Amino acid sequence: MRIGETHYRSIWMEEDPGIVSVIDQRKLPFELKVVKLKSGKDAYNAIAEMIVRGAPLIGVTAAYGIYLAGLNSDPQHWCEEVRLAGEKLSSSRPTAVNLKYAVDAMLGQVNCAGSREGMIDRLFYMAIRVVEDEVNRSREIGNQGLALIRDLFKKRGKPVNILTHCNAGWLACVDYGTATAPIYLAHDQGIPVHVWVDETRPRNQGSRLTAYELGQHGVPHTVIVDSAGGHLMQNGEVDLVLVGSDRTTRTGDVVNKIGTYLKALAAWDNKIPFYVALPSTSIDFNMKEGSETEIENRAGAEVAFVEGWNEKSLQPEKLRILPESSNVANPGFDITPARLVTGLITERGICNATEEGISSLFGE
Amino acid sequence: MRIGETHYRSIWMEEDPGIVSVIDQRKLPFELKVVKLKSGKDAYNAIAEMIVRGAPLIGVTAAYGIYLAGLNSDPQHWCEEVRLAGEKLSSSRPTAVNLKYAVDAMLGQVNCAGSREGMIDRLFYMAIRVVEDEVNRSREIGNQGLALIRDLFKKRGKPVNILTHCNAGWLACVDYGTATAPIYLAHDQGIPVHVWVDETRPRNQGSRLTAYELGQHGVPHTVIVDSAGGHLMQNGEVDLVLVGSDRTTRTGDVVNKIGTYLKALAAWDNKIPFYVALPSTSIDFNMKEGSETEIENRAGAEVAFVEGWNEKSLQPEKLRILPESSNVANPGFDITPARLVTGLITERGICNATEEGISSLFGE
Repeated sequence: MRIGETHYRSIWMEEDPGIVSVIDQRKLPFELKVVKLKSGKDAYNAIAEMIVRGAPLIGVTAAYGIYLAGLNSDPQHWCEEVRLAGEKLSSSRPTAVNLKYAVDAMLGQVNCAGSREGMIDRLFYMAIRVVEDEVNRSREIGNQGLALIRDLFKKRGKPVNILTHCNAGWLACVDYGTATAPIYLAHDQGIPVHVWVDETRPRNQGSRLTAYELGQHGVPHTVIVDSAGGHLMQNGEVDLVLVGSDRTTRTGDVVNKIGTYLKALAAWDNKIPFYVALPSTSIDFNMKEGSETEIENRAGAEVAFVEGWNEKSLQPEKLRILPESSNVANPGFDITPARLVTGLITERGICNATEEGISSLFGE
Repeated sequence: MRIGETHYRSIWMEEDPGIVSVIDQRKLPFELKVVKLKSGKDAYNAIAEMIVRGAPLIGVTAAYGIYLAGLNSDPQHWCEEVRLAGEKLSSSRPTAVNLKYAVDAMLGQVNCAGSREGMIDRLFYMAIRVVEDEVNRSREIGNQGLALIRDLFKKRGKPVNILTHCNAGWLACVDYGTATAPIYLAHDQGIPVHVWVDETRPRNQGSRLTAYELGQHGVPHTVIVDSAGGHLMQNGEVDLVLVGSDRTTRTGDVVNKIGTYLKALAAWDNKIPFYVALPSTSIDFNMKEGSETEIENRAGAEVAFVEGWNEKSLQPEKLRILPESSNVANPGFDITPARLVTGLITERGICNATEEGISSLFGE
């Protein structure tokens, strides 16, 4: 997607195939800084230090990391080195399912009985494939969801107002994003859309990343606090809610960023369609109920401190926004029960958020 | 209520009856600064500059302001001066109903045919009465709501978890508060309570004021982002939701801080009692449906900038937290339909959020 006049992905290989570049997402939206990864260790650090984030992008970064580890490996000990790099990358973030998937796909290319050069070739092509698979899934989610937006535009005859929560955009993936993919495709086809961007406390992925993405690509959008969506829905200012998902159970319960459940309730109360966009790689077929998920309790400092741009010092700074003695709780995700979900938008099509719906697309 | 070991009100007359002191609420929770008001103009500035806020406190401050205007009035032109001060104070904030009520009560004491000294005496006593009426309403709301908390404690046998939104505390009133009044009374009687404090973006009245109040009075509490309440309710961690109200219609619709509606939906979905605490002075008997209310669209800068404590410079600062080019919408209130409200806690008792319920207590 575009930043200014340039088409960007969140990660790309430079002309020198020993260098993989990523956008430093910790600096957005205040600074566009590109970080060059030259080794498996660089890739590990990029994930662990949250230079990159978003489950799909983490997986892709790990894939490139294993390739870089192979490229730089010692001619004597290449096989162990690459395996160790894979183990290390696997541990870089505890919960991302895509990470394990990508690492397994890459390590499957390592044959200790073969040649180092053969392995490097195979790692190169497998990394490219992991990337392109990710992009293709996003684009297909976009195509599937596009039909929904087009229908709403035909019915209304005026711009379609879409509310989204958190960042399920291209910055979390490689290109297009998940929830944003139908929005970008609609915008690029000239269907007028306007996006209500939930700020998404406490880490503000909505106001920092989604607003940045949409603004750079030229998509009209308005940032709101997380509390405002219900009021907008009551007043007919939202035509569609479109969010991503960190994990979807086989019965259609959706684990996503904290606050998603409240938006689903408001959509339901106001008879507004509530869709979840997700690649099939984030469906957990082993899990029936969302309540089986253990919800991560994150550091209270994420709530107690806020990061932003100091217009006096012209640099990013942190401020404390709570009394020092107050306790803080910071659950990272919540569970939207399938009964509140109008449909799931996947790369294979749109289905009901039910066991039957999901297995109609992913029966195997 | 307590700050440290001292009992405070949000406003009080000093031993010198020419000085009325208020807590500078713009500085909380980072600094406890007391501002001395010595004239009607000082009182006007305190309201206009938001040194004081909260509808009940604004009314009380205006009442004291008219008294101070009388006290400092010119022996020749006292009558016009006091009336002008009343007009000016009336215009200090556009929407507070209590403000008009307090100003009218005070100006009713001004008799241009009488003596200046007589007027000053009457203004003094009327100001005291406006203050004490406010405190009494809060205390009675507290007593009425206390029964609910006591019952929940008896039923559960463990600390009662109460979720609140925004600041409907003593800092918004004079003492006790509205939504917080039952909580303070329960705590002071030894009933174990724990309060989930919604941060309340964008102005953070929850994390800045409610958390401060509760902490200083020794009430156990935990600050959460506005998005977290639904998840806590799904997990049985909320026994009661207790909020204030800026305006309640005669049929029981509740206009309150943006985001209240989302909490009411979540309480309803999880079968958790959702109560609204309000003095009868905030019931709008002329209004039937909440949707008749014009919702104030506040400055986008409230969302785009956040104020907090810089632990390096040791002073409060502001940071921008959005891309400069993003639009912002900032509706200040939303409407919780009466159907989602379990009951209204007023100074005369608890009633259903219906026209019948309200007129059973306020038939006249």
